[in-house]
Amino acid sequence: MLLRTMLFVPGNRAGMIEKAKALDPDALIFDLEDAVPPAEKGAARRMVRDALESGRFARHRVYVRVNALSTGLLPTDLEEVVSPHLHGIVLPKTEDREGVEAASRMLLEQENRRGLPAGHTRILPIVETVRGILNLAQIAGSSDRLVGLAYGAEDFATDLGVERSRECIEGLYPRTMVALYARLTNVLAIDSVFADIGDGEGLEKETSLARQLGFKGKLVIHPRQIEAVNRLFTPSRAEIERARQVVAAYDEAEARGEASVTVNGKMVDIPIAERARGLLALARAISFQPSAISFQPSAISDQPGPETAT
Amino acid sequence: MLLRTMLFVPGNRAGMIEKAKALDPDALIFDLEDAVPPAEKGAARRMVRDALESGRFARHRVYVRVNALSTGLLPTDLEEVVSPHLHGIVLPKTEDREGVEAASRMLLEQENRRGLPAGHTRILPIVETVRGILNLAQIAGSSDRLVGLAYGAEDFATDLGVERSRECIEGLYPRTMVALYARLTNVLAIDSVFADIGDGEGLEKETSLARQLGFKGKLVIHPRQIEAVNRLFTPSRAEIERARQVVAAYDEAEARGEASVTVNGKMVDIPIAERARGLLALARAISFQPSAISFQPSAISDQPGPETAT
Amino acid sequence: MLLRTMLFVPGNRAGMIEKAKALDPDALIFDLEDAVPPAEKGAARRMVRDALESGRFARHRVYVRVNALSTGLLPTDLEEVVSPHLHGIVLPKTEDREGVEAASRMLLEQENRRGLPAGHTRILPIVETVRGILNLAQIAGSSDRLVGLAYGAEDFATDLGVERSRECIEGLYPRTMVALYARLTNVLAIDSVFADIGDGEGLEKETSLARQLGFKGKLVIHPRQIEAVNRLFTPSRAEIERARQVVAAYDEAEARGEASVTVNGKMVDIPIAERARGLLALARAISFQPSAISFQPSAISDQPGPETAT
Repeated sequence: MLLRTMLFVPGNRAGMIEKAKALDPDALIFDLEDAVPPAEKGAARRMVRDALESGRFARHRVYVRVNALSTGLLPTDLEEVVSPHLHGIVLPKTEDREGVEAASRMLLEQENRRGLPAGHTRILPIVETVRGILNLAQIAGSSDRLVGLAYGAEDFATDLGVERSRECIEGLYPRTMVALYARLTNVLAIDSVFADIGDGEGLEKETSLARQLGFKGKLVIHPRQIEAVNRLFTPSRAEIERARQVVAAYDEAEARGEASVTVNGKMVDIPIAERARGLLALARAISFQPSAISFQPSAISDQPGPETAT
Repeated sequence: MLLRTMLFVPGNRAGMIEKAKALDPDALIFDLEDAVPPAEKGAARRMVRDALESGRFARHRVYVRVNALSTGLLPTDLEEVVSPHLHGIVLPKTEDREGVEAASRMLLEQENRRGLPAGHTRILPIVETVRGILNLAQIAGSSDRLVGLAYGAEDFATDLGVERSRECIEGLYPRTMVALYARLTNVLAIDSVFADIGDGEGLEKETSLARQLGFKGKLVIHPRQIEAVNRLFTPSRAEIERARQVVAAYDEAEARGEASVTVNGKMVDIPIAERARGLLALARAISFQPSAISFQPSAISDQPGPETAT
Repeated sequence: MLLRTMLFVPGNRAGMIEKAKALDPDALIFDLEDAVPPAEKGAARRMVRDALESGRFARHRVYVRVNALSTGLLPTDLEEVVSPHLHGIVLPKTEDREGVEAASRMLLEQENRRGLPAGHTRILPIVETVRGILNLAQIAGSSDRLVGLAYGAEDFATDLGVERSRECIEGLYPRTMVALYARLTNVLAIDSVFADIGDGEGLEKETSLARQLGFKGKLVIHPRQIEAVNRLFTPSRAEIERARQVVAAYDEAEARGEASVTVNGKMVDIPIAERARGLLALARAISFQPSAISFQPSAISDQPGPETAT
């Protein structure tokens, strides 16, 4: 599943919900948590429920960010929003296995009530406190519902008592651990929101770092962030080209009965060839997404095209 | 409690102890360990005891760095220095929970003997070996006496068999873990000494890195290091200004029934507003310290002053 | 033991095996794994066995990279190669304690069969998957046979689904942990191969980073990588010079009854003096290696020579 961009939409803003219909992030997240002031939680729940039940978002993958377990608001949130069209919940401030298990039990109850199959609703926990990061070993794999592990940089910095730096040095360890535990348990690592909407360069820098650490997608808070983030989590033409060369050279070597080959001065053996195949598979998967940024078919074959034969 | 600067003073140098009276780090540490050669341990203990009992340091927060548990010198160190004026001990080469517990039992014995309340004497462990860093999960929270967790970069590099680099790359993981476990257990993360006394730029760079990773103070070895370190662990006027803007904008948004607002192109919601409030609270706390570098009262109100109204 | 450079030699290439005789890495690794296609495993095993039994490599320290436990090829690999001349095996894709223990039992069986002392054959596990890195605490110390812990950057990147970056940011955490657990258990940390044979600058950069993180050697895949890697894992003349100054100044201070001294504006106390002594001991050990890059004897004494007296 692709979750390169997950766009937050405030659950209490009818106009923004309406506008979201025309947008193409890989997922939408209707927010009942930080975007909604306490007095409007009830109205927001109903607005989100109506949006889900109207079928207006049938072509989207829709998540709802519910309120944290500790607020006591979670059972009522779930009562309103669990439904056939809801893909999953985003669970903020997840700190331990018990938190995921409690949310999972509440989901099961709502699924039973609505006649949905058990496990229909996925969970994307946001790990965004020091305690959560230090408990990743128990959070990862805590439920079959987990679709990924998300990192929350703003809350994490607040919890640690530091400002966010452009170099993300305070976020290097938490990001690394979220990426590793996501991979260990075969779910997606999803990076934090980047709050500075006007800073496109900062967004690209942070997204590139996240990708390099193993993240597969990012939470976004403004439609203008979608294009760059989708692009950065999609193999580039140059990457696809290099991967095709690597795979072709390795396959030829294999046919000659050899197990490694030199491509552009670099030794290519099994792990490097496997990585190139993985990149091509990702590029193909993205090209079959209805909402994907478009590719030339020739760019995603793993056979070298005529323009690379020289 | 503020422990931005903790100044080491050799416990065997009467002249330096005398000079320390006029200095204003957030704490003094009389050293019985590495600064004192074996033959002078006894004389140093008595010198430190006399300094404590004389009342000459009554206005200071005074710690003593004792010898490591493994030396066998610790019981005698404590016999001499535990007293009403001693705020705590700095425990070098702490490697496991048992080390802290053993020191804590010895402290209790001395507190009983001196008629001091149990728990009067705090412990600041220095974690400065590979084993200690890998055991942080058991060291953190090992005693209610812990006031912080300190990192020792010189001993750590020696244990790992590497030189210290200016980029601190070998110290990134240990610093990160000390900061996270300090936060997890609600004590202060205190950074290593910086031995190159003449290198003010290097000191500022290392201190800034430590602050960004969540440290709240630093061990210093020369009076000339105090000013820079205090300054770097104190919110700057510009930071205070930005925090006031953020808090003011968020409060206005809240009054309008909204949960987020854009300030200078950046989305501000709960975690960011909370962080700004935390920074203002720290600035206020520092301004009330007798030894603090001075602030204009207007700079630390969280209401915007007239000069920021435009 | 010095293992600054461990050179891979494909086990199925008679010509390359022959050429390796004249090379002087600190160890040779005959490869039965990724360098050998499935159809040639049997021939490669016999070629490696013959090379070992011929006595042609008696002056070398020889390892064999066997196939991973999960392939089922390991028992046959060991049946052929365990012998008096084999120093140890390199065990790829090591992910847990059980993997090391299983390999160790198989080695014991072959040692018994060949009349070799139990434990004759060492193990160098390569940790090169996300699971392996997260399991380092159980892999380290899992057998007395362990001579080190090696990091495999190519397989790790493939497992995580990322390309390798020149900054090695995706490899910072795994390298850090391999170095720390190697030190904790008193074995050598050995860094990954660097596949870009033509990129000497990249090799030096990666090797320097590894050294700074605590690594003591590196896997190499081409004879031309040996010189740079040996050099970077050997104290330089300038480092030796500085270390001699530090030790001399500290010894003089100690003789005066002092425990610290300032050298070039930097405070030198026990940990810094110990580190300098360690560096000099390493330089001496290297100078006594038959294959070492040569030193002037004066450069490795820890007494300052006449040229440094001014």
